[in-house]
This record gives sequence, C-alpha cells and structure tokens, in this order.
Amino acid sequence: MYAISLGDDGAELRPLEPWHAEEFLDNLERGRQFINQYIPFGSRVTDLDTARETLQRYAGMRAADTASYHGIWLDGKLVGGVLTLAFDAEQGTCEVGCWLEPGATGRGLITRAMRVLIDWAVEERGIHRVEWVAASGNTPSIDVARRLGMTRDGVRRAAHLHHGVRHDLEVWSVLAPEWRAAQARTAHNER
Amino acid sequence: MYAISLGDDGAELRPLEPWHAEEFLDNLERGRQFINQYIPFGSRVTDLDTARETLQRYAGMRAADTASYHGIWLDGKLVGGVLTLAFDAEQGTCEVGCWLEPGATGRGLITRAMRVLIDWAVEERGIHRVEWVAASGNTPSIDVARRLGMTRDGVRRAAHLHHGVRHDLEVWSVLAPEWRAAQARTAHNER
Amino acid sequence: MYAISLGDDGAELRPLEPWHAEEFLDNLERGRQFINQYIPFGSRVTDLDTARETLQRYAGMRAADTASYHGIWLDGKLVGGVLTLAFDAEQGTCEVGCWLEPGATGRGLITRAMRVLIDWAVEERGIHRVEWVAASGNTPSIDVARRLGMTRDGVRRAAHLHHGVRHDLEVWSVLAPEWRAAQARTAHNER
Amino acid sequence: MYAISLGDDGAELRPLEPWHAEEFLDNLERGRQFINQYIPFGSRVTDLDTARETLQRYAGMRAADTASYHGIWLDGKLVGGVLTLAFDAEQGTCEVGCWLEPGATGRGLITRAMRVLIDWAVEERGIHRVEWVAASGNTPSIDVARRLGMTRDGVRRAAHLHHGVRHDLEVWSVLAPEWRAAQARTAHNER
Amino acid sequence: MYAISLGDDGAELRPLEPWHAEEFLDNLERGRQFINQYIPFGSRVTDLDTARETLQRYAGMRAADTASYHGIWLDGKLVGGVLTLAFDAEQGTCEVGCWLEPGATGRGLITRAMRVLIDWAVEERGIHRVEWVAASGNTPSIDVARRLGMTRDGVRRAAHLHHGVRHDLEVWSVLAPEWRAAQARTAHNER
Amino acid sequence: MYAISLGDDGAELRPLEPWHAEEFLDNLERGRQFINQYIPFGSRVTDLDTARETLQRYAGMRAADTASYHGIWLDGKLVGGVLTLAFDAEQGTCEVGCWLEPGATGRGLITRAMRVLIDWAVEERGIHRVEWVAASGNTPSIDVARRLGMTRDGVRRAAHLHHGVRHDLEVWSVLAPEWRAAQARTAHNER
Repeated sequence: MYAISLGDDGAELRPLEPWHAEEFLDNLERGRQFINQYIPFGSRVTDLDTARETLQRYAGMRAADTASYHGIWLDGKLVGGVLTLAFDAEQGTCEVGCWLEPGATGRGLITRAMRVLIDWAVEERGIHRVEWVAASGNTPSIDVARRLGMTRDGVRRAAHLHHGVRHDLEVWSVLAPEWRAAQARTAHNER
Repeated sequence: MYAISLGDDGAELRPLEPWHAEEFLDNLERGRQFINQYIPFGSRVTDLDTARETLQRYAGMRAADTASYHGIWLDGKLVGGVLTLAFDAEQGTCEVGCWLEPGATGRGLITRAMRVLIDWAVEERGIHRVEWVAASGNTPSIDVARRLGMTRDGVRRAAHLHHGVRHDLEVWSVLAPEWRAAQARTAHNER
Repeated sequence: MYAISLGDDGAELRPLEPWHAEEFLDNLERGRQFINQYIPFGSRVTDLDTARETLQRYAGMRAADTASYHGIWLDGKLVGGVLTLAFDAEQGTCEVGCWLEPGATGRGLITRAMRVLIDWAVEERGIHRVEWVAASGNTPSIDVARRLGMTRDGVRRAAHLHHGVRHDLEVWSVLAPEWRAAQARTAHNER
Repeated sequence: MYAISLGDDGAELRPLEPWHAEEFLDNLERGRQFINQYIPFGSRVTDLDTARETLQRYAGMRAADTASYHGIWLDGKLVGGVLTLAFDAEQGTCEVGCWLEPGATGRGLITRAMRVLIDWAVEERGIHRVEWVAASGNTPSIDVARRLGMTRDGVRRAAHLHHGVRHDLEVWSVLAPEWRAAQARTAHNER
Repeated sequence: MYAISLGDDGAELRPLEPWHAEEFLDNLERGRQFINQYIPFGSRVTDLDTARETLQRYAGMRAADTASYHGIWLDGKLVGGVLTLAFDAEQGTCEVGCWLEPGATGRGLITRAMRVLIDWAVEERGIHRVEWVAASGNTPSIDVARRLGMTRDGVRRAAHLHHGVRHDLEVWSVLAPEWRAAQARTAHNER
Repeated sequence: MYAISLGDDGAELRPLEPWHAEEFLDNLERGRQFINQYIPFGSRVTDLDTARETLQRYAGMRAADTASYHGIWLDGKLVGGVLTLAFDAEQGTCEVGCWLEPGATGRGLITRAMRVLIDWAVEERGIHRVEWVAASGNTPSIDVARRLGMTRDGVRRAAHLHHGVRHDLEVWSVLAPEWRAAQARTAHNER
C-alpha cells in the first residue's frame, strides 16, 4: 500500500514484508552470486519457506525497532533494497546497508533509496550517526558511501570471514550535521 | 518515511509504529470519551509506557501479518486511524476498523482512509471478504459501512459487553467482486 | 478419571487430553471424510505425533481458559466430542462446536453432550451468549443449533474457504435467559 | 462440570482450575497455618492475583501432563484437595500429595480422594510406582500413607528446609501389583 | 581456561561447555555401552548436533544454577565427568552424579573429582545435603558413594525404568557436618 | 571452584556467576563513579535483585557462548573483572572489555587477567581477531590496549552517547598471529 517514488523511471521504495516471500526469493535467485560476493545477505533463503522465515525475522526486528527492510521495485519487479540495522534510537546510531541484483545496477537506485532512508533516520527518527560497513575490496559499496558524503572512520582488520576468506572491513559514517549540510548544498546546486 | 495523501486538505495515512507513542497518547487523550463510547480501543493506554506497549503489541501483530494499524495525520497531527484485524491471507478474510478524535470528524477522513485500506486488502493481498463490526447504537460507524457499499449480514445479539452494558453487534461486509464493481461505478461517475 | 453419563446407552463425556492421542487418531481416521466435509477439524492429525501435538495445543487453550475439548465415549470407544472455543469469561461469550464419526450419528449424542456443556457454560461459568457457527449447507449441524433452541443471528457471506470452496457461515446463538427458560420448559414437560 | 462423588456426605472431587481462584484463596486462608506446618503448599497465594497465578501454573503442568490438581468440595465449599506431581507416564512413576483445611479433617476425605486418584493413575495411566513424601514429624500425613497400604522406602535425612528447620523426609510407595491386590482384598471384605 | 588438577597423573577437572561437543561425542561413543548400563546419561547424543544440543541444555541449567557439568580430562582426552543436579541453593540440597568411559576406570578419577565437587557444594555454596542415587545392581556406583563416606537413606523400589527393566534406586547421602568431619579425619591421617 | 592465579599477590580470576550477586553489588558500589565515567557497565545494578538479574543475563550469554564474564578477586574480595563480548566462534572474532574499582588500580590486574583471557580466546577457541573499544578520552583503557600489543584500527566518530555526551570510540585490535608473536617475544625476554 505504501510506496515512495525514487524518480522518473518508475522505481519505487516499499516496506519489504513477509508476504513478499516469492518476489524476494526470485530477486535473490537472480542476484545471489553478485550479492553474496562480499556479504552473506539472504544466503539462508533457498526456497519459499526459507524466504518467508527470513522476511519474518526481518519483520520481528522491525517490530522491535532495531532494523527495517525496504524493497526497491523497478517496473513492478523487486530488484534489491536498502535497510537499517543495529538501529538504536536512544543512542542515536544505526547502520545502513543494501543489496541489488546485477541487472539493476548502474542506475543509481541504491544511492537514491539510501538518501530517502538516511533522511528519514536523521530527520524523523533523530539518528546522529549513520554507519556504512563494507569489505575493503568491495569497491562499488565503498563508492556508494563516498557518494553519500560519508567519511572513512577506519578499517577493522580481518573482521569478516566470508566464503573462507578473511576480509578487512572499512567503516564509514555520516553525522547528522554533515548530512544536513550536504543536503542543503545539493538543494542549492539543484536550484 | 511512508505516507499516502488522502486528499487536498493535507490529510495523510502512515504506518502507525511504536515510536509514535507520544502522538498516539495525545490523540487518545483528546478523543478518549468519544472513541470509547462503544469500543475499548486504546483503553489500556494511560501514559507513555502503556502507549508504547500497545503500539508494540500492534507491531507484533503486523509482523505476524494478522493486523495492521495506520494513523491519519491532519496538519501534522495524528487524529485517528484505520486498521485491519483478524487478517487471514489464506482464508481471504479480514475485519477492518477505525478510530477518530471528535475534532477531526465530519471531513470523511475515515471513509477516505478506509478506501485506501480496503483497496490494498482486496487488490494487493487477495482478500475476498472484508468485514465491519459495529454496536447497533453506533450510528456513525454503521453509516461508514453503508458509505463503503457494505451489506448487513446480521446482528450478533448481546455479543459485546462494554462499560457494563451488553450491545448487539451488527456485522456488515463487502466481497471483492462487490468492491470492484463499486470502484468501477465511482470511477465512471467521477469522469 | 472424570466422566459424565450421557444416558442409558453408556455414552459418556470426558475431558479430552494429550494422553488420548491414539484414541483421537483412531476416531479421526474412522470419521475424517465425514467430519471434514465442512470444517477442517483435526485435519492436521495424520499420525500419533500430530495427534499428540493437536491435543497438546488444546490442552494449552484449556489451561488459558479460552477453549475446552470433551470427548464422547460410546462402549468405551471415542466417537466424537464437543468443545468450547473463543471462551471469554469476562465478556460472558463463547462459541461451541462438535465433531462425530459417522457410525455414531443418529443417537442424539451431540445434542445430549452439548446440553451438558452449555449448562456448565451458562450456570457455572456465567456465559451470557453461546454461539454456534455452521456452513450454510451443513444441515445436520444447523439442525443441532435448532434443537438446542438457538436463534439465527445472520449469515456471514463467503466467510469460510474450505477445500477450495467459499461457504457462507450461519451464526446462531442462545442467550442465558433463553437457555434457562428452555431448560425450565423441558423439565416441566418431563415431569 | 465434572465431579466424582466421594461418598454419602456429599463430598466431591473436581478438577481445580484457574477460575476457582477465589474459592482457592478462601480455602487457603482458612487453612494456611495448618497446611503450611510442614509443607509450603499455596504459600505464594496471598490475594486473588497470586491465587490465579498459582492455579495458572498448575494448569500449565496439567497441560504438560506432569501434574494434576483436584479439589475436594464439601457442602459446596472447597476444603482441600489431592494432586499428582512429577507425573511421568513413560517411566510409570508419580508422586501424590494433598492439602486440607483443619475444619474438614477427621472424615477420611483425603484417603477417599486419594483412592480415586491412585486408581486412575494405576489403572488408566499405567503408573507402576506411586510415591508419598512426608516430613518425619507429620504423623497425620504418614498415617494416610499407611492407610493407603504404602510401604516405607526410607528416610531422606535433612532433605527439606521449612520455616528455618531441616526436616527428614520419609518416602513411602505403593506399586501397581500391591495396589491391585489391596483393592481386591477390600472389595472382597466389602461384599 | 579453567582447570583443576586431580593429581600427579595429569588428570584435570574443567567446566564442560557447548564448544566441547566433538570431544563429548567421542567420549560417549567410546563409553556408551558401559555408561548406559544403568543410566540413560548422554543417550540422546548420537552425532555432533545432538552433542551440541545436550551440552546447550546443560549450559542452560548451569545458567539457572540448577546443575553443573564438569569434564575429567586425562592426557588431554575427555574421559568422563561429574555433575550436580537438582541443585537448590535455597534448600541447601543437591544431587551429584558421574560418568566414565571404561578405559579410564580403576584410577579413582571419579572419587577424586567428586571430592572437589562436593567440597565446593558444601563449603562455597552452603549445600547441607548431598545426595547420590544409584540402581541397586550398580555396584561400582554404590562403592563410590561408600568411599565418599555416604550413608544409605533407603531404597526407592522400582523407581527407574531403563531398557525395559524396572530397577530399585538406592538413595545415599552425606550431610555437611559429616563431610567436614570426614575431611578433617582424612587431613589428620594424611599428615 | 575454579580459579586461576594471576600472580604472587594472591589475585585470582574466577568465573563470575549469579550466586556472586552480593559481592558484585559491593564491587560496583565501591567503584561505580570510576567505572561509569565512560561506560554504562553495571549501571542497572542498584540492589541485590538487579545484581542477580544482571548476572543472570551474563549467565545466559555464557550459555549461548556469546559472552563470558570473569571476576578478579584480590585478598578474597571481588574488585573487578574481564569479559568477552560479541563472541563469535564461527567468525573467529570477539570483543574484550573490563571493569575495576579504583582501589585496585595500579597493579596491572586488568592486563594480567586480559592476557589469560585473550590467550584462551586465541589458543583454545580459535579466535582470530580480538577487539578493544574505548572512548577517545579514556586514557587508562587505551593504555591497556597498547600494553596488550594492540593496533588502532580507527575511530568511530560520535558513536557512543553516555551521560548526555557523545564520545568518539577508538577501535583497537590484535590478530592471532600478532598475539602469538608477542607472546613468543615475551617468553624469550623472560628467560
């Protein structure tokens, strides 16, 4: 029922919910190899039941206000999404993340969706620090952090074991005042 | 983050979530006497803690896909809402309901919001039968059912004890084909 | 240990408990086709484990005072039963229901057992409204409601999807004063 | 609804359930000092809420088939009860116990109720060993064990701390064949 | 990380934890027939998953302070262990038990480990009564009780069904003053 | 029962468990102001009940193998402790932390205890990356990280809100090969 337009190409952001299990499974099956190169997102989803279970787990976290998952629909097809994680309204901190199937890359969908999400976190929910974590080799992910105006806080060495390989994890962040200043500059430039 | 415009007067429908506790409490305190004349909606909410608990309970039902609560904001103020209850996607049935503070009545807010909600239930979620339950004496509520094109299925005698009085409960419903036909007629008339 | 005689033919009403799993499975296997014509009662029970699980679920509801299941034994064999559902002592309302294997029909067992159950609900537990729900085509079930002196409150159109078919659900009820008057008349006539 | 006559004086055994909270509280308040001389039975029950909680806990154990609580009603008043504990149908073992307010002693109520309970455990549920545990100084309790034909298995020294005093616990038991033989003798004598 | 030396042969007592699943499984597989002659200890453990589940269950009991499991390592190999059960700090009572693979018998490992365990229970945790339960035919187990200076409290007839056979259970115990006196005598003799 | 000597001054490391509630409360009350300058450790502990609850929560985490809490006893008095957090054996990562009352500082207790803990994590549990997190202003804590041979990975800006002030969080770490090399050097030097 709820949808936010992401631009003129018909892309939309919508809450991702348990009843989207079939679409979520299809999305993951089209994108699995690409999505799971650096992160295990959706790796437990192998059929309709596990898709439902995973979305149910997300729904539980949303109810607890510790995470929120939002799908990106392009031409009526779920192609990826953005999410908050470790959301802590009292501390004013959260992590954000994303996934996208390869056929939908190159259009700035993640950056557009992320702007909506961070704006909501900062302006509606009072989040002060938004964090982005990416494996050092994951250039596209790090590029998104840079495009969102984030700063690199450091590198947690050897912090993530994935497919048998230890990856360094870059930690980027944007603070509320930085976000607002950047939004103001963008608005100014777009006039 | 998500919002659906309900018309030119700026009224909006948004998911009602645990972090709205303060606004929800204010809304109930302004409308309690009016809202609780026939139904116990929100009657456990007496302070911020109980507001949060109640919204948390709603969030749990939403995660379980058995109910969904949506607030109506007018001029940035939460004035009421609409909801699904006993939502059963497999059976294709649900109940719908509403609440509104007295200062926001007379503008058709509930009818407008309900149209969005029933449309979603029928068209996106495959609900076949949408039910409306109202105490026999609750004329405004029964008028909404009528305006939504519902049919009276019967009267469950003495089914509801409220404030020490036994009320008959009228059961109204609209089936998916009826809903679609009515929407088509409206669309035709509005051309 | 507990048993209530239902008459001279040795029929008895007893609490149905988890340790009756084997008898319950046998009862359902003899009656499945007949019992499940209009309702899904016991449809999850396919072996001893699922029989135990189902009875365990019933036991949980009994502990929570929201339902109670009672078996009917005829010649030492479990042939069916009666039950309360949606039992709400505070509201003074409950639903009642039943199941019976075909070999035990035609003896008035359900009507006899139901009289004991409704009497308990009304006289011992303070229930004001006892509801009976049956698919419109389920004539034997509707006949029981009529024999128990119930009134038809209405028809919830298309409310039940069973085996791929949508059924209307008739709602019947008897209120405490009506029940007492009927019992008094019966007692008078039986003198 | 269910009741078993314990004799000509109108005493009855009935399942003790959460909705008996008020009667249970009254029973305990009349008998507390007497009942709690050697055992902490019902000591958490100090008002209606704790009475309900305690009965709810018993109901949970009954649902799990690990215990069962049965009240003794005399002239329509709950005066005590008998219970199974540590009920283990697979092992074929259980413990039995009782409580009684002082005004109802001297009539053999416990012995009568216990016979019904042990008979059910042995004959209907296949229990092989029924155990009775009593503080060494609790002569009335030990007398019941003796009257039920039990044998003293031993004394668990210093096993029970109650009101600051360490009590030895006598363990008595009756095995299924012994129970049956005793019942047969009694039946023979009563002819 | 924690370890208590049990003597000059390098035997050590350590907390047994979920991450020991593989060693625990190996220990049980070497000792199963011997260990399970009279008791079902570890009988649910048939592979790595069930070993982990069982140790997880033990860990839960340890967290609840109702039991504690301690492994005995000999030459770096887990060969058996000792445990507290039904640990009740408020009552000042607990049961103790053990298991050992046959290759490690004859060295007094259980007696040595049990001394450490009972000492801790009595001196650090304030346990007044330590109980030992063994099937009447289990001579090695009864010999340990005797060596620990315990007294036979009685025989719970037919209390344990194991592998289709009913066993009498001997109950032995040592009280805190008895334990302290025995330790003092031992210390005196060892001078 | 378990204890590890931390040196010649009698300092010992022991598992911290729910039954230490009284000692834990005393330790926190002596050190609260000092301990809570930068971190909220133990801030929920205000009496014996909350001390027990907190230790119970720790015990649950230990049972789940996600954390472990170890007290430091000096002259038989609990003066502080060390802990693992976010322990993930599959990923081979964990965080470590500590607390100490002011009267016990200046003796290297934390460094000594931490060496035992990290050694266990690395050598017995296969942890590859051990992380240390400290507010930028918390010089004593950062000094410990340095003394343990850790490297600064970066600074998570404004990541911690404590007593109304936003603190930057320094992230330090030591990897298993680094730890082993440092231990080897130390052993060499101590010859």
